[in-house]
Amino acid sequence: MSDAHGLDARLAQWRARCERMLERCLASDDEPTRRLSEAMRYSTLGGGKRLRPILVYCAGEACGAAPEVLDDAAAAVELIHVYSLVHDDLPAMDNDDLRRGRPTCHRAYDEGTAVLVGDALQALAFEVLAGPGRDPGPGDLGAAQRLQQLRVLACSIGTLGMAGGQAIDLAAAGGQIGAAGLEIMHRRKTGALIQASVLLGAIGAGVDSGAQYTALERYGTELGLAFQIHDDVLDVAGDTTLLGKQTGADAARGKPTYPSLHGLAEASRLAIAHRDAAIAALAPLGDRAQLLTQLAHYVVNRSH
Amino acid sequence: MSDAHGLDARLAQWRARCERMLERCLASDDEPTRRLSEAMRYSTLGGGKRLRPILVYCAGEACGAAPEVLDDAAAAVELIHVYSLVHDDLPAMDNDDLRRGRPTCHRAYDEGTAVLVGDALQALAFEVLAGPGRDPGPGDLGAAQRLQQLRVLACSIGTLGMAGGQAIDLAAAGGQIGAAGLEIMHRRKTGALIQASVLLGAIGAGVDSGAQYTALERYGTELGLAFQIHDDVLDVAGDTTLLGKQTGADAARGKPTYPSLHGLAEASRLAIAHRDAAIAALAPLGDRAQLLTQLAHYVVNRSH
Repeated sequence: MSDAHGLDARLAQWRARCERMLERCLASDDEPTRRLSEAMRYSTLGGGKRLRPILVYCAGEACGAAPEVLDDAAAAVELIHVYSLVHDDLPAMDNDDLRRGRPTCHRAYDEGTAVLVGDALQALAFEVLAGPGRDPGPGDLGAAQRLQQLRVLACSIGTLGMAGGQAIDLAAAGGQIGAAGLEIMHRRKTGALIQASVLLGAIGAGVDSGAQYTALERYGTELGLAFQIHDDVLDVAGDTTLLGKQTGADAARGKPTYPSLHGLAEASRLAIAHRDAAIAALAPLGDRAQLLTQLAHYVVNRSH
Repeated sequence: MSDAHGLDARLAQWRARCERMLERCLASDDEPTRRLSEAMRYSTLGGGKRLRPILVYCAGEACGAAPEVLDDAAAAVELIHVYSLVHDDLPAMDNDDLRRGRPTCHRAYDEGTAVLVGDALQALAFEVLAGPGRDPGPGDLGAAQRLQQLRVLACSIGTLGMAGGQAIDLAAAGGQIGAAGLEIMHRRKTGALIQASVLLGAIGAGVDSGAQYTALERYGTELGLAFQIHDDVLDVAGDTTLLGKQTGADAARGKPTYPSLHGLAEASRLAIAHRDAAIAALAPLGDRAQLLTQLAHYVVNRSH
C-alpha cells in the first residue's frame, strides 16, 4: 500500500511537471496560426495518462538524472504520442470520433487542420529535443547526449517503429495477421515509442550503453507489449466512460487483437507475463529499479 | 553562356549526389512495411528539381564545406519537402491528383498510406540529420553542428514555418487574405524551408553566425519569395506537361496568389525584384557567391 501510494505521488508530480512543459512548448501569440495552435493545444493539453513522459522521468531518475535535464525529452515523447493519436483518429485511418472523452481533433476542427496538427507536433517534438541553442551550462545536457536522444526518438517513430506499426495495422484491419504478426505490429505501433521513452531518460542521465542501458532496453520492450496487450483487453472489457473512447472499437473494425486471437483470459495472462519479464529485466539496476517496477504493475492494473 | 553551362553541370552533379543519398535512405528490406516503403520511394525518387538539396550543397560549398559533410542535410531537406507535398496533396488539403507527372501518393496507394508516408518521411529526415551515431571522425560533422542543423530545420517546418504556412493557406482558400497576408503565407509555406536549406549548408561548413550567416539568411528569405512568386506565375502561365501538375489549380480553388492579387506582369516584376534582393544580399561572400547568384537567376527563369 505505502509503495503504491509513493508511486501515485510521484506520478502526480511528474504529470504536473510534464503539463507545465507542454503548456510552455505550446504557448503561442502568433495571430496567423491561431487556429492551428489552438487545435494543437486542444489535442495535447488537459488529459492523457502521460505514461511516456513518466517513463522518461522514472528511467532517468533511476539512472541518477535530475528532472530538469529530463524535461525536454519528456515533452518531446508526449508531443510525438499526441501527434500519432491525432493522425490515427483520421477518417482515412481509424475514423474515431472520441478521444480522451472529447471529440477527436478532426471532429472538433477539420480534417486538414488535424493533418497539420500532427505534422506540426512532430516538428515541435524535435525542436524541443534539440534544445535552446545556447552553449550547454554545467547542469545542461551536452550536444552529444541530445543528438543521441534525437536519433533514438527518430528511429522509434519511423518505418521500423511507430509509423511502420500503424501501416501494418492499416493493412491488417479486416484481414488475417496471425499471432506473430500481431506482436510485430504492437512492438512497433506502441512498443517502440514506449521503449524510446525509457531510453531517452537513460541517455539524459548519461547512460547510453552497458548493462543498465541494455536492461532498460529490455524493460521498455516488455513494458510496451504488456501495455498494448492490456489496452486490447480494456477495449473488450473496459468502460467507455473511464477510457474516454469507445470500447469494442477494435472488434467492430475487424481488427486483430490479443483477445480476438488468444481469448480474453490468455491475453490477460500474456500481459502479466510481459510485465513480469519487464520487471525481471531490471535486475542490473538493483534498488534503483523500485519505481520502474511499480510502474510495470501500474501499466497492467490501470482501468483506462 | 559558359556561366550558365557551369551551373547546369553542377546542378546535375548535385542532383545525382542527392539521388544516391535518397536511394540509400529509402532502401528497405523490411517485409511487414513493404507497401509503406514502396510508397515512400514512389513519392520521393525519380523526379523533382531537388532545389532544396542543391541549396544545401551550393551554400555549403560557398562557405568552404566538402559535399561529403553536406549529404545528410541535403537528403533531410528533400525528405521534408516530399513529406509536405504528399500531405498537401491529400483530399482534406489541396486534393490534387497529379504530382511530378504521376498520380499523387494517395491516388497511387490510398489516403491512410499517404498520411503515413508523410509522417515517416518527416521522421526519416530527422533520423538522417542526426547522423550515424558513431563518434565523429576528422572529416565528419560535430555533434554541436548537427544539433544546430536539427534546430534550424525543426523551427522552419513548425507553426512559424511550413506547417503554419499551410494552415494559413487552408484558411485562405476561397477567402480574402490581402497582399501582406499572402507574403506571410509564402514566407512560411515555401520560404522557411528554402531558407533553412541555405542555412543548413552554411552550418555544415561551420558558419553559424556572423556576416556570412546573416547574408545567407537574407538570401534564403528573398530567394524563397522569388521562387514562390514564380511558382504562382507558372500556375497561370506555365505548361501542364512541363510542370507535371495541373496549371490553373490555384485559381480553380479560389486561392489567392501573386497574379490574382497583383496581376501577372506585376507578379513577374516582384519575382525579379526578390531575385535581385537575394543576389544583393550575397555581397559579404564576395567571389564565393557566384553559383548562388546563378542559382537565383535559375529559380525565376525555370519553366517548371
